[in-house]
Amino acid sequence: MFMFTTTTQNMEACIDACDQCHRICLQSAMTQCLESGGKHVEPGHFRLMMNCAEICQTSLNFMLSNSEFSEQICAVCAEICDACAESCDQLDGMEDCAKVCRECARNCRSM
Amino acid sequence: MFMFTTTTQNMEACIDACDQCHRICLQSAMTQCLESGGKHVEPGHFRLMMNCAEICQTSLNFMLSNSEFSEQICAVCAEICDACAESCDQLDGMEDCAKVCRECARNCRSM
Amino acid sequence: MFMFTTTTQNMEACIDACDQCHRICLQSAMTQCLESGGKHVEPGHFRLMMNCAEICQTSLNFMLSNSEFSEQICAVCAEICDACAESCDQLDGMEDCAKVCRECARNCRSM
Amino acid sequence: MFMFTTTTQNMEACIDACDQCHRICLQSAMTQCLESGGKHVEPGHFRLMMNCAEICQTSLNFMLSNSEFSEQICAVCAEICDACAESCDQLDGMEDCAKVCRECARNCRSM
Repeated sequence: MFMFTTTTQNMEACIDACDQCHRICLQSAMTQCLESGGKHVEPGHFRLMMNCAEICQTSLNFMLSNSEFSEQICAVCAEICDACAESCDQLDGMEDCAKVCRECARNCRSM
Repeated sequence: MFMFTTTTQNMEACIDACDQCHRICLQSAMTQCLESGGKHVEPGHFRLMMNCAEICQTSLNFMLSNSEFSEQICAVCAEICDACAESCDQLDGMEDCAKVCRECARNCRSM
Repeated sequence: MFMFTTTTQNMEACIDACDQCHRICLQSAMTQCLESGGKHVEPGHFRLMMNCAEICQTSLNFMLSNSEFSEQICAVCAEICDACAESCDQLDGMEDCAKVCRECARNCRSM
Repeated sequence: MFMFTTTTQNMEACIDACDQCHRICLQSAMTQCLESGGKHVEPGHFRLMMNCAEICQTSLNFMLSNSEFSEQICAVCAEICDACAESCDQLDGMEDCAKVCRECARNCRSM
């Protein structure tokens, strides 16, 4: 008989938070930002949106694969999420994205 | 004033299905299959699990980015999900994974 | 003694072509297109650049993992590469990107 | 007239190193390790191979997109590459993979 690795409650919450943050950043960048133009496609902001989507996907994949390096990836993820949230704060209509980024950062820090 | 691209109800369901399928395939492969060994790590099965996880992630990202090629990616995704479900049917303890794969295939076909 | 799966010469060339196409599309989008603005960040063009980068990455990963579905992914990849090349043809300074996309499409079709 | 962001010589070398490391880790895991079985599919080793492939892909994508967070991702990447190399040292036939991982770690540290 063997036992499978199980995720903790903390990790389950963090997996959900990274998933939501990946979704809203990628979707907002590729629809809202591109369609709005102007400051929404300014390189600094747009790169942060895409970087945030990608690191959230990587963090999610590390946690799903029960990696011993999940905590370190999540630490970098938290920093990028906070930077993305601050960038969203400067723009119209990005309140939801900023909120989800901050929630993800909070979860990543509690890993 | 402008309107942002919105996802349809069908696409929202498909995004959720691909997300769930990516999660269960990657997590099952990297925990349950690796820890069980034997037939669970037979190349044919294990590759299908990882291929299924990856194509679901790609389909998800195409839909989130409102790509005009989403339907074509989802068509390939449906085939891989079905192949993965059939492979899971041959093994102990993979019933949940098979079920999620079939549900994802069904959603991808209705796109 | 055992033999490992080996890639064919065709597949090696296609792996290299997808890799190059992923690189130039992602790098051009996130530096040249964002920094140029205007038509370079028009949603139709920019999405194609990002879709092309992502499907090339997926095709590459399928071939590297010796997936039985590589041919099908490469077929979709070829279509997206051609669409991206056509979009690049309409814009200044995207000649190299268009050329690499067409080379990738050609390799993906010969799989 | 405008200037596009250009990568430095250091970054070009690191992009190539991450690319090579992603390739050999993913390909070795999904062909050599799965086909050899035994210690090659032991969870600790196999996870490291997949984690290494994924973080190299993420580092590559961050550098290609000229992200301000490239250095931080590369620092985590270097640690995972070293852990993967050490794991490869314990197994038959993984010398090439170990070598490429160490070369990638060295490049990531010089960013």
